[in-house]
Amino acid sequence: MSHIFQSLPPVPFLDPGSQEELGWRHWRPEAPVLGRSMAEWLRPAVAYWHSFVASGADPFGAATLPRPWEAMPDAMAGARQKAEAGFAFMERLGLPFFCFHDRDVAPEGASLREGARNLDTMADVLAAHMQRTGIRLLWGTANLFSHPRYMAGAATNPDPEVFACAAVQVRHAMEVTQRLGGENYVLWGGREGYDTLLNTDLAREDAQLGRFLNLVVEHKHKIGFTGTLLIEPKPHEPTKHQYDRDVATVYGFLVRHRLLGEVKVNIEANHATLAGHSFEHEVAMAAALGVLGSVDINRGDPQNGWDTDQFPTNAQELVPVMLEILRAGGLGSGGFNFDAKLRRQSIAPEDLLHAHVGGMEACAAALLWAARIIEDGRLEAARRERYAGAPWPGSLAEIADRALVEGLEPRPRSGGQERLENLVARLG
Amino acid sequence: MSHIFQSLPPVPFLDPGSQEELGWRHWRPEAPVLGRSMAEWLRPAVAYWHSFVASGADPFGAATLPRPWEAMPDAMAGARQKAEAGFAFMERLGLPFFCFHDRDVAPEGASLREGARNLDTMADVLAAHMQRTGIRLLWGTANLFSHPRYMAGAATNPDPEVFACAAVQVRHAMEVTQRLGGENYVLWGGREGYDTLLNTDLAREDAQLGRFLNLVVEHKHKIGFTGTLLIEPKPHEPTKHQYDRDVATVYGFLVRHRLLGEVKVNIEANHATLAGHSFEHEVAMAAALGVLGSVDINRGDPQNGWDTDQFPTNAQELVPVMLEILRAGGLGSGGFNFDAKLRRQSIAPEDLLHAHVGGMEACAAALLWAARIIEDGRLEAARRERYAGAPWPGSLAEIADRALVEGLEPRPRSGGQERLENLVARLG
Amino acid sequence: MSHIFQSLPPVPFLDPGSQEELGWRHWRPEAPVLGRSMAEWLRPAVAYWHSFVASGADPFGAATLPRPWEAMPDAMAGARQKAEAGFAFMERLGLPFFCFHDRDVAPEGASLREGARNLDTMADVLAAHMQRTGIRLLWGTANLFSHPRYMAGAATNPDPEVFACAAVQVRHAMEVTQRLGGENYVLWGGREGYDTLLNTDLAREDAQLGRFLNLVVEHKHKIGFTGTLLIEPKPHEPTKHQYDRDVATVYGFLVRHRLLGEVKVNIEANHATLAGHSFEHEVAMAAALGVLGSVDINRGDPQNGWDTDQFPTNAQELVPVMLEILRAGGLGSGGFNFDAKLRRQSIAPEDLLHAHVGGMEACAAALLWAARIIEDGRLEAARRERYAGAPWPGSLAEIADRALVEGLEPRPRSGGQERLENLVARLG
Amino acid sequence: MSHIFQSLPPVPFLDPGSQEELGWRHWRPEAPVLGRSMAEWLRPAVAYWHSFVASGADPFGAATLPRPWEAMPDAMAGARQKAEAGFAFMERLGLPFFCFHDRDVAPEGASLREGARNLDTMADVLAAHMQRTGIRLLWGTANLFSHPRYMAGAATNPDPEVFACAAVQVRHAMEVTQRLGGENYVLWGGREGYDTLLNTDLAREDAQLGRFLNLVVEHKHKIGFTGTLLIEPKPHEPTKHQYDRDVATVYGFLVRHRLLGEVKVNIEANHATLAGHSFEHEVAMAAALGVLGSVDINRGDPQNGWDTDQFPTNAQELVPVMLEILRAGGLGSGGFNFDAKLRRQSIAPEDLLHAHVGGMEACAAALLWAARIIEDGRLEAARRERYAGAPWPGSLAEIADRALVEGLEPRPRSGGQERLENLVARLG
Repeated sequence: MSHIFQSLPPVPFLDPGSQEELGWRHWRPEAPVLGRSMAEWLRPAVAYWHSFVASGADPFGAATLPRPWEAMPDAMAGARQKAEAGFAFMERLGLPFFCFHDRDVAPEGASLREGARNLDTMADVLAAHMQRTGIRLLWGTANLFSHPRYMAGAATNPDPEVFACAAVQVRHAMEVTQRLGGENYVLWGGREGYDTLLNTDLAREDAQLGRFLNLVVEHKHKIGFTGTLLIEPKPHEPTKHQYDRDVATVYGFLVRHRLLGEVKVNIEANHATLAGHSFEHEVAMAAALGVLGSVDINRGDPQNGWDTDQFPTNAQELVPVMLEILRAGGLGSGGFNFDAKLRRQSIAPEDLLHAHVGGMEACAAALLWAARIIEDGRLEAARRERYAGAPWPGSLAEIADRALVEGLEPRPRSGGQERLENLVARLG
Repeated sequence: MSHIFQSLPPVPFLDPGSQEELGWRHWRPEAPVLGRSMAEWLRPAVAYWHSFVASGADPFGAATLPRPWEAMPDAMAGARQKAEAGFAFMERLGLPFFCFHDRDVAPEGASLREGARNLDTMADVLAAHMQRTGIRLLWGTANLFSHPRYMAGAATNPDPEVFACAAVQVRHAMEVTQRLGGENYVLWGGREGYDTLLNTDLAREDAQLGRFLNLVVEHKHKIGFTGTLLIEPKPHEPTKHQYDRDVATVYGFLVRHRLLGEVKVNIEANHATLAGHSFEHEVAMAAALGVLGSVDINRGDPQNGWDTDQFPTNAQELVPVMLEILRAGGLGSGGFNFDAKLRRQSIAPEDLLHAHVGGMEACAAALLWAARIIEDGRLEAARRERYAGAPWPGSLAEIADRALVEGLEPRPRSGGQERLENLVARLG
Repeated sequence: MSHIFQSLPPVPFLDPGSQEELGWRHWRPEAPVLGRSMAEWLRPAVAYWHSFVASGADPFGAATLPRPWEAMPDAMAGARQKAEAGFAFMERLGLPFFCFHDRDVAPEGASLREGARNLDTMADVLAAHMQRTGIRLLWGTANLFSHPRYMAGAATNPDPEVFACAAVQVRHAMEVTQRLGGENYVLWGGREGYDTLLNTDLAREDAQLGRFLNLVVEHKHKIGFTGTLLIEPKPHEPTKHQYDRDVATVYGFLVRHRLLGEVKVNIEANHATLAGHSFEHEVAMAAALGVLGSVDINRGDPQNGWDTDQFPTNAQELVPVMLEILRAGGLGSGGFNFDAKLRRQSIAPEDLLHAHVGGMEACAAALLWAARIIEDGRLEAARRERYAGAPWPGSLAEIADRALVEGLEPRPRSGGQERLENLVARLG
Repeated sequence: MSHIFQSLPPVPFLDPGSQEELGWRHWRPEAPVLGRSMAEWLRPAVAYWHSFVASGADPFGAATLPRPWEAMPDAMAGARQKAEAGFAFMERLGLPFFCFHDRDVAPEGASLREGARNLDTMADVLAAHMQRTGIRLLWGTANLFSHPRYMAGAATNPDPEVFACAAVQVRHAMEVTQRLGGENYVLWGGREGYDTLLNTDLAREDAQLGRFLNLVVEHKHKIGFTGTLLIEPKPHEPTKHQYDRDVATVYGFLVRHRLLGEVKVNIEANHATLAGHSFEHEVAMAAALGVLGSVDINRGDPQNGWDTDQFPTNAQELVPVMLEILRAGGLGSGGFNFDAKLRRQSIAPEDLLHAHVGGMEACAAALLWAARIIEDGRLEAARRERYAGAPWPGSLAEIADRALVEGLEPRPRSGGQERLENLVARLG
């Protein structure tokens, strides 16, 4: 069967001196890094939607990328061809995982029931490809934002019937994820938010979202799905405001609805920056709060205020993130999902290969770089030393009284930021 | 005793047709609004720091505003003259409340103990002015960010001695607040944050901050202070990242440290917008989460990425905020503190009067406007109607099964945003 | 012929005390304002693309708005029905102008030639509707950004064939604009920019853009089109960077390519704010530079970093813009084009009416407000007085010598910003 | 004479395998790079103000950095000690240039005349240090923003007396720059802008600024100063809006006032990003417009909306900038001025050394990296090939007619962005 990726070569592992453009220099899945293999630390995945579905259309222009399967009159035949081509691409790329939404792999259909049938059929198709290629499912999810019925939210929709439609999709997507051996199930609340407060009841929508998540957790246990449930924060876009704004906000939501311990977060770099955070902040915060689950790896454009979902290429930028992940002991069942898309002008089939290879190389290089920093030890030592002082015991009054008696004049100490930044830069 | 505000007139209440520049048109403290007086809803306060301390200096230039008391060789004499002038200004303005930091009203001194003595002395001076004028204290707070000792934070400082200095100040500022009949005590963690993650232990700093707040709560109860404790969120500035980023983040912090019910939030308009929120979002979120305490009223400049702390002048902009406050039943012990400062070029004594009058008029007009909307009833009715549908009972599977059986195709309904926005605009 | 706007009523002019939701309170086309009619100052227009073409689709979701004509198998029949419905809507609304892109009114076709034929046919259809209704054309333009051929720009495309396609469209759209009595012709360079500097030759693309504009000017004169040519600035979106960033940038471009005097600017509120400017800044700058042509009236969302194109509803926000336009003596052949779109959830036919009425009312109220400020005179007097000092004559050395001799100590004067802001607010 | 930098070692050139923290690895002034020495390409400078004057104070806190000379009762003695310490630091660092404002090196004094005398005296002191150390002056400038007299601008101030004060300072600072062999003279219009349009006459202020610059140019020629005049763009801060917003805006200003050819731009990285541009955009734009003069090297914080002026540490980030500079043939009389400051907590004397070494190393590494890309040739070849098509000759109508006759369907070509980004990343 012919497809657009047919002529692409498998990505080779290159010698250090090679001048080849396309190939692995840093990504060595089996290479040992601080006691694990690189593949165990990173667990990289291809995103089905960006790589095989998204068309290059933007709010001002039509599709540009070749997606012949989307034009096929028989939607299920198109879905099969897409899977064929997608796995062919992933085989050439050679990364171990992929991720998908229900609607990426199977057509919506004319009714909920037909959509469900389509997904079941395509799950078998995917299973066969997975079996054949050894490519595994990092996570599945349900698309609760593209269909017009979700324009006012899915779980937070004022209309209980829309809530029920979301229940149909999430139950099914989670069960298909389980069937395919998926290791996590993700919920991105793309339209769980509002466009105007004037027509919105925040407390009511929060209660609905809390109930929905609790139903999902309950169902997960009922069916014995052992993967991790993950919420993916984003501050806005498409809605004016999205409830799962950032890690700290999701943490508060989880506590409020007694979901802590049941649900973690999937942190996307570009969502972090849209929320006014650095990527490493969100990862560090999740680690500190005990909810670090997985990451969607990409980058935004600092001059553009929307989700540009670009492939990362600057390893040094990722070093602080890798440091936090190494310190946290890794991502467990999570991984690095390339939630990144080709620029609209990158219409050649090999562009998709270039993009993934560049992104993966940046991650692998950053991991090695961060490991060198850990092994060097000076950064960690500086931090340890900074917090060496033992807290004073006692009540506010006891501490204050002692301070007055001692006539405290604390000695200022340098934060050493530039020295530490240089230490990081130098170990590249 | 002469001072710079001496020649300012008391602000008059004007007739509707008056062409006077300076005077009250909307602010009528006794006017009834939805069952309370306007003064009870708004409880406006003058901020001691911006109005009587801040000099007009900015990162690129020296002081411009007349603050003769700051130049006096005897700092305590300066503090007395500042109080004299400040209360003279507030008398002319005629608003019922004020707010202060410990270091606004009394000099730092050469030691913790001298600072404490200064504050005690000045508390008596303030008490006399309050007695004489009837002006009350909305809230007090401690300045834990200006002194170099706090450069790496106060409660979150790696150095336990700095934590202890903060304990001295907060205990004292809270006790002075109590002594002066203050109705709230505010904690703004201006430097409780980080400049770089490379030298920061997030979990440790969170634990310190949680402990500090718990000590403060315990002390409050020990001394029998009946005011409300308030955290004031801000996302950054002066630090790169501040822990009390926004309402949702503070909520998570309060829950984590078992402080919910003990501490509420003081929401500043400009801090909300720096955090990527609308002001009304933060107020609505606090109301929904049960932590709405008070507001710092001002506005930012949408084109400038720092805390510009301007006086509000656009009543319509404030209507959504007033709607949330009316719906929430008011601010309780909180109020509207004008955490707003003169532009650096506004060096004439009357500028401070213009600024406060304009800001107060905008708030009063917005309150009346919002009350008209509530009385009109159409906005509330539209919202109620939108959420009229009863949630479906049952588990995820039960809901999903029923949806499939019914072959749901939810009817899309307009969100009516433009209609509702017009409804709001029209009632101005 | 039936259509979705059939049941909408004409918008009535209301009595002051009316409680009606939909109707004109401020917009009185014939009302005199500073020596002209309101209609002459504002010249409002409906945007064909947002109101009759755009579907509510966004980067994360499908169409929601009813656009039955887009689904018709015969594209030209659809275009005719769209025109029928569009003019029916505009009749009910009652505003005097509209604006369009070539591809809004006529289908792209399978070839350049077919697209041209379609446009010619539809121009006759539009002409008949215009004749019948008296609705006039404020401006026409060509869509040089939606078709995939323009993904790397139109006039700035590295491929000369794409430049030639743009020439086909612009020539034709300008000629059709002339034929329909359009009073301006607009060029928005939506993809005249770059996605990465790595593959971009700035100087070459600037030269191409300059040549293209010069060819357009030459053609305008050749065909005797007497309307004004307008460039519409925008900083980015869809491209990472767009060459016509803001008014000052376009000014430099016009000078560089000897186009000053031939081309003015069409300033969009939301484009101004995306560029980091206030709307009034861009209008004032264009007036100061002599290139103020027309405005696209809408507003952005200060918390969302993309072009939200919302209808304005806050009259006070628009007062500074109206002040600049009044001072500049109006917009000449320009006007106020509602380049504003319904929120995606606003799917009821009457929503489009609500949206336009609210936007128009805000503009009309702001115009009256600004006129009151001009008539009051105090704002203008304060500004005049501020610049009353006569410049010193002489060379740098002469001025400096005199200053040293005189031992200058310039007296600081208050900028009076708060007073002036209050003056503006109070005249609402 | 003792000072705070006394105990710092000279920065050594390190062997490749060295584990030392402080030392040169990439910076090798004499190393040949594409036909010049590294020092000739980069011409790095220390900024007197950040390194020896700025105190670490910020809008929320007092000075933290040790600047003993600022506390000396005799201001001229302080200025001498500052120069002594500053040159001692620069000797240890070993970079070839420095830059200063008049007020950095000499006290303001009680009058214009005293300020001038102070500057003359200190110019001799600086000259002696320069003579002794061989350190040269990259550029001088006048501080027209710190003194309260400039609160409403210098050249654009409504008060002609303030304009005259600015003339005194600029004439003198330029003459001192000439006397000290400075190679450029910079004008940063920190307060040439506005805080509110309500009190501002844009056209008048533009005329004043244009006149001022023309006077400066005339004076430059009169005194025979052969250095380059440079305007430094910034969009805002401290003012709400600054006239010299970005390169394109300054270009328009220069053309309008017939200054093109006389004045170039000094581009600061953090100013570029505050203006919504990438650093490389501003450099590329200046090169394309023929006004590239010099750069202020630093970086901003993408999450903080003010001028953070941090030292760069990520070489890859700087590669696109270096590519533009290499393509432009270098900076001529310009250089890389470290307009970067220590974080407020970096209070140890060695922090200043760490900061400069890290910044310089990033620049040197980026230069070498960019040179490798030029030598590799593939990036340049891809760009050349993209623009290989020859423009069509003829008028708009001729081009359009030919396109219709040929029935153009331009073949879409990939922009190859990801491939090119990887090519850049890989050559690090």
